[in-house]
Amino acid sequence: MDSIFSDRITDVPRSFIREILKDALDPGVISFAGGLPNRDLFPADALKAAANRVFDTYGRDIFQYSSSEGFLELRGLIAEHYRRRGLAVAVENILITSGSQQGLDLLGKTLLNDGDGLVIEEPGYLGAIQAFSIYKARFIPVPVTERGMDTDRLGSVLRADRPKLMYTVPNFQNPSGITYPDANRRDIADILNGTATLLIEDDPYGDLRFCGRACTSFKTLAPDNTVLLGSFSKVVVPGFRLGWIVAPDPLMQKLIIAKQASDLHTNHFIQCVIYQYLRDNDINAHISRIVDAYGGQKQAMITAIERHFPAEVTCTNPDGGMFLWASLPPSASALDLFKLALADQVVFVPGDPFYIDRTGVNTLRLNYSCVDRDTIAEGINRLGSAIGRLLQNHPDST
Amino acid sequence: MDSIFSDRITDVPRSFIREILKDALDPGVISFAGGLPNRDLFPADALKAAANRVFDTYGRDIFQYSSSEGFLELRGLIAEHYRRRGLAVAVENILITSGSQQGLDLLGKTLLNDGDGLVIEEPGYLGAIQAFSIYKARFIPVPVTERGMDTDRLGSVLRADRPKLMYTVPNFQNPSGITYPDANRRDIADILNGTATLLIEDDPYGDLRFCGRACTSFKTLAPDNTVLLGSFSKVVVPGFRLGWIVAPDPLMQKLIIAKQASDLHTNHFIQCVIYQYLRDNDINAHISRIVDAYGGQKQAMITAIERHFPAEVTCTNPDGGMFLWASLPPSASALDLFKLALADQVVFVPGDPFYIDRTGVNTLRLNYSCVDRDTIAEGINRLGSAIGRLLQNHPDST
Repeated sequence: MDSIFSDRITDVPRSFIREILKDALDPGVISFAGGLPNRDLFPADALKAAANRVFDTYGRDIFQYSSSEGFLELRGLIAEHYRRRGLAVAVENILITSGSQQGLDLLGKTLLNDGDGLVIEEPGYLGAIQAFSIYKARFIPVPVTERGMDTDRLGSVLRADRPKLMYTVPNFQNPSGITYPDANRRDIADILNGTATLLIEDDPYGDLRFCGRACTSFKTLAPDNTVLLGSFSKVVVPGFRLGWIVAPDPLMQKLIIAKQASDLHTNHFIQCVIYQYLRDNDINAHISRIVDAYGGQKQAMITAIERHFPAEVTCTNPDGGMFLWASLPPSASALDLFKLALADQVVFVPGDPFYIDRTGVNTLRLNYSCVDRDTIAEGINRLGSAIGRLLQNHPDST
Repeated sequence: MDSIFSDRITDVPRSFIREILKDALDPGVISFAGGLPNRDLFPADALKAAANRVFDTYGRDIFQYSSSEGFLELRGLIAEHYRRRGLAVAVENILITSGSQQGLDLLGKTLLNDGDGLVIEEPGYLGAIQAFSIYKARFIPVPVTERGMDTDRLGSVLRADRPKLMYTVPNFQNPSGITYPDANRRDIADILNGTATLLIEDDPYGDLRFCGRACTSFKTLAPDNTVLLGSFSKVVVPGFRLGWIVAPDPLMQKLIIAKQASDLHTNHFIQCVIYQYLRDNDINAHISRIVDAYGGQKQAMITAIERHFPAEVTCTNPDGGMFLWASLPPSASALDLFKLALADQVVFVPGDPFYIDRTGVNTLRLNYSCVDRDTIAEGINRLGSAIGRLLQNHPDST
């Protein structure tokens, strides 16, 4: 039956993380592999109250077909959220999506022809790689480090290749935890302004900042070239699948058509529930609770790493978000480490799938949002011991 | 900015019905244009009770990321629903989708290369035309009438063209209300069996049968060639955006990848709510209430048509579903009628968009699910008078 499939689906792999996570289901295993927000912080009671208020006061149209753009009042709150941060975004330029993964799908659908160039961060977000692979993007990796994106490389790529799209997670990136410094953002904007390349600024983690000041959005620095993606998954709950796109008018019109063709509209009742939840609760206070918890867990992980990891392993130290990124000595393999660590009942995500060409085999992603501090200490202890054994048998170390 | 868009989105029009429905928002207008289930029949209290039971007893994972295939228990109920109808469907072959519109999108995504042949009913469902247009299907229209699909035409098309897909709504079709008789289904299956063409049986209305016996599913008649699409939109509520695909194993694997890339998974909490609703309530009794209401409304429309429409206008008389289909004399235009009718404060959907080549300008779709019997009588009276004026000035009539 294989021959009947479309070319676009044939080369897209199943989610690597999804496959790995199967191993994490054994209750004895400590998992740093997930990309999940912490369930203990979900505002369950407040969401129940909001849902009941919606049931009791909104009338029966909460159950009916609704507009493809999304619930107007919710889009209004999102516009207000941007206004408070100094970004002027009109309600008409906000499309509600079924999670920001759908934002990626709709952008691929409306913008990418086969083989169109797309700049992707290296390492880059797997969900974006998967979504854009479907539309047969030609990925052009540009390295990111704690100094931000490599602007020399970006400049030469934009001049030589005139890519249609550029995908970034500039705040507390998945997988690396890296944040682009403001100076780097201004350099990127200078390169971008005046070109036809559209920058997708995906910002699911931006509000989860543990320290320091918020950086400047590309929407401010390169307004004509920037599309924003937002999500309620990390600040409220992911299971509701609610996100949004902010796009300029002509693109917005195409995105609405693509949304109609894809699923008509996002669950209307749930949009009302999130709207009511945001009206009735102090979302900033809730976000502060998440930030306190994740910030403490990150610090516990950094402390444990300093204690248990060999000195030749380097790590990012993120100012927010859910992930940090470790690099083994260049010729060591995180895939080999994965087997050793699994035997010790601790798992993580090996880094190579985050690289288009599967380089970066010496890297790994560590999630700290779903694991309490004691478990982090124990898991990093186990992982440090596995790394010790790996490097002991390794040609680089003597 | 136009040049940056993908080829696939450039030719897909905005929903014609969506544009028309704007006019229906004036409260004085009687609308037969909608495709909506009747809001008065939504089981609002039972859904509220189910939601609260889910909040109170399922635990916090109802808010978490979940599996791309969908909530296992809900898939189990769907499998059971098919078993009761004599169809053996394994849970593993059921994928939960964000409405059956997403089912269409995922099938297009996994199966269609540019220009692949796709047999579409004529008249055919606009949502399917829109979804498959995105993947640049080459539509091959085959006429349907109250005798079912034109099997002579289908046979020659399948022999000559070997289309990859064939899309059907064999029960109470949208837009026409037509149901394929069993003998016609057997003829279609005979033509199909042994070919590589995959038949998509989209069945959102099948349970809404006013009279007569259920017809045989293509899944029984041509099991290897049939993909089923189902939906809770017409039997519970559409705003929750919950549907499903039943697909054979190899296709299922590709659909899961496409689902991951499209939106990770469908809203998990809402899947739990629908599951709990189905467990706690007699869905068949609920469907009986819908059938009684729509059946009565259809009869009111037929009675009013017999009274108010000129004899040269013909209509289908559906055994179920939400629509009937009227044909004016061949050279009369339903678009002209639309203007006359709107002046009389009654609207419908002109039929030509349901034809790939925009023929069928003399046809129109009339929805009866959302309008009470008295309003139906008044609306059909107004429409009959508009038709009278149209035909008076028309060359066919003298």
